Amino acid sequence: MNLPLGYAYSSTYAGIRQVEKDDLALIVSGLPANAAAVFTQNRVQAAPVKLSRRHLRLSKGLAGAVLVNAGNANCATRTGDAVARATCKAAARLLKLPVPQVLPASTGVIGVELDPGKIVDALPRLIGGLSSHRFGDAARAIMTTDLVPKTAFAEVKLRRGAARIAGMTKGSGMIHPQMATTLGFVMTDADIPGARLRAMLQRTAERSYNRLSVDGDTSTNDMLLLLANGASGVRPDPKEFRKVEEAIARVLETLAQAIARDGEGARKLITIVIAGAPTNEGAARMARSIANSPLVKTAVAGSDPNWGRILSAAGNAGVAFDPLKIDIHMQSVAVCRGGLAAPFSEAELKQKLDAPECEIRVTVRGKGKGSARFWTCDLTEGYIHINASYRT
Amino acid sequence: MNLPLGYAYSSTYAGIRQVEKDDLALIVSGLPANAAAVFTQNRVQAAPVKLSRRHLRLSKGLAGAVLVNAGNANCATRTGDAVARATCKAAARLLKLPVPQVLPASTGVIGVELDPGKIVDALPRLIGGLSSHRFGDAARAIMTTDLVPKTAFAEVKLRRGAARIAGMTKGSGMIHPQMATTLGFVMTDADIPGARLRAMLQRTAERSYNRLSVDGDTSTNDMLLLLANGASGVRPDPKEFRKVEEAIARVLETLAQAIARDGEGARKLITIVIAGAPTNEGAARMARSIANSPLVKTAVAGSDPNWGRILSAAGNAGVAFDPLKIDIHMQSVAVCRGGLAAPFSEAELKQKLDAPECEIRVTVRGKGKGSARFWTCDLTEGYIHINASYRT
Repeated sequence: MNLPLGYAYSSTYAGIRQVEKDDLALIVSGLPANAAAVFTQNRVQAAPVKLSRRHLRLSKGLAGAVLVNAGNANCATRTGDAVARATCKAAARLLKLPVPQVLPASTGVIGVELDPGKIVDALPRLIGGLSSHRFGDAARAIMTTDLVPKTAFAEVKLRRGAARIAGMTKGSGMIHPQMATTLGFVMTDADIPGARLRAMLQRTAERSYNRLSVDGDTSTNDMLLLLANGASGVRPDPKEFRKVEEAIARVLETLAQAIARDGEGARKLITIVIAGAPTNEGAARMARSIANSPLVKTAVAGSDPNWGRILSAAGNAGVAFDPLKIDIHMQSVAVCRGGLAAPFSEAELKQKLDAPECEIRVTVRGKGKGSARFWTCDLTEGYIHINASYRT
Repeated sequence: MNLPLGYAYSSTYAGIRQVEKDDLALIVSGLPANAAAVFTQNRVQAAPVKLSRRHLRLSKGLAGAVLVNAGNANCATRTGDAVARATCKAAARLLKLPVPQVLPASTGVIGVELDPGKIVDALPRLIGGLSSHRFGDAARAIMTTDLVPKTAFAEVKLRRGAARIAGMTKGSGMIHPQMATTLGFVMTDADIPGARLRAMLQRTAERSYNRLSVDGDTSTNDMLLLLANGASGVRPDPKEFRKVEEAIARVLETLAQAIARDGEGARKLITIVIAGAPTNEGAARMARSIANSPLVKTAVAGSDPNWGRILSAAGNAGVAFDPLKIDIHMQSVAVCRGGLAAPFSEAELKQKLDAPECEIRVTVRGKGKGSARFWTCDLTEGYIHINASYRT
């Protein structure tokens, strides 16, 4: 798959995290890119979230570079705002960009002062290392408890030529829908006007990052950024924007699934599919309630077809439905029909549930047209191990 | 502590659960008792929940007996309603009570047919075993994954004499606020009119069972019942009802804490105290968000003073506050002042966090008067072990 034209990437170890593993990443667009972003809805927002928001306002939605550090959230510290400002300013000077065109992002521990000197000192070698081929290095540098880097790619053929999309993301815990969960950076070389780009991101985030939960927690630092620099020279025809949006949606969905698959301690990706709910919004609420149920997630961990927990979790969504009209399938096997136990071979289904992917399908019989798709992961001892001692 | 007058208890093994441990309990009041109840708000409601609701309506709030089984929820089965009706009818006949004065309750696995014959056959020996001293046996018979029986007692001196209160409860998983979480049966021999009893239960459940979360899940079978049979002959003076209500509240709070303390896999009771929120309701939302955060709960499991997770969880409650006005104490040690790290000895606090009880106190500086107290438990590998293989 070809990367989008006109972007360069770099990474280095700036000494922010204790293990010597790259912790600073840079994404640069040769042309100023139209940028759209969604941010965490947490009441507590990290300094880089506040500054990125401000920079996008000041630059009227243009971005030239994204400066990301892992290992420290730059949140709830005395100097957070000053650190974010100083590091963006230093990067802008070296990159010869207006300061508001540099967007900061951070991920890591909350409440620990971040030394701006470490980032400023690392900037020359970070910028010296920029290359259009180092996409994967940048994707690795933004990882925290992630076990694997998470990337997704797409290419769309349009009348005037091809446009490419590449996305990277990080996140495996503190993941919950209803905000730009985690850090995600998606680049395209299509030429897309800013207002349309923002609308596209809203819609595609809604069906990808906002349909994802690992543990129901929400970070102070979440940010999902979509850049379109037009370096392909290809502006989609009015009728082609839908095609581009679908390609962006596929990239975001792949990234969101990759996060669930790599959820802290997870061994299984769980896809929840709801059909027949009164509305799409109701379907999403039912899916979210199932995805956030520790009882459902531990049952899947144990390959236990415990559909009663699924029914009960669906019943907790605050959505009106008749329990006697519910069908539940796990791995395409009917386990509940009309709200009652369906006959199935427990041994066979247990074996099917040992697979690395589990699909839970809940159908409300009747006239409802609401549907939703949602991703989460199983809940295992590994989650506890990781989180009982993350900070220290 | 003396038990309330005029009640008798019994338990037996009816063969509902696989291990031979009493699974059927009976509570009988010699005089018809005024009864108040709160039930699960799950959309999916077990047959005994529906029938208890109906019986209370038909009996105009009078109850003579409570028939409880563990090991099977009698929910989402073909015959559930008929099973609940048949067993209550059989008990009513033997106890010479009008059928609607028998209230059924069930707890256990969902979606498995419950054989009414097992209960009906056990009724003669269950009733034969009735005694005013077997309160503890009944409390043990309603347990499922509970490690310990949960009981609480109070006695109030009133002008006309003493009134006694005794409560038993069960529950250690699938525990979440905003409903009559779990099964709870509270008896008093005070003479309290039905309407007042219902108002008392609403208010006291709000500050006890509705301030409790183990895993954010809600059962289809939750029920909290308060019986007042007047056997003491003591009707409180109008001014004394407040005193009785406080005693009931203490009993319910003790029971709710006992559930959190015995949360599945839990090693620690966590008490969350919020002060200075805009409203009491906002304070409760902040507390609930912290109580439901797996990241906070795993941090406490690891004795990790990770206050950033507490701040972040508070920020997710949808309550407006200025992050720079937040103080956080753990075990009375200030860990965050004005939204920023406070200096504290990590080694000393870690040691304090090894205690079996953890207090997290979040204060919003300023003029807000909203406060709340909330209970939960730490999240450990034990929770996973129990729930990855509960059903099979």
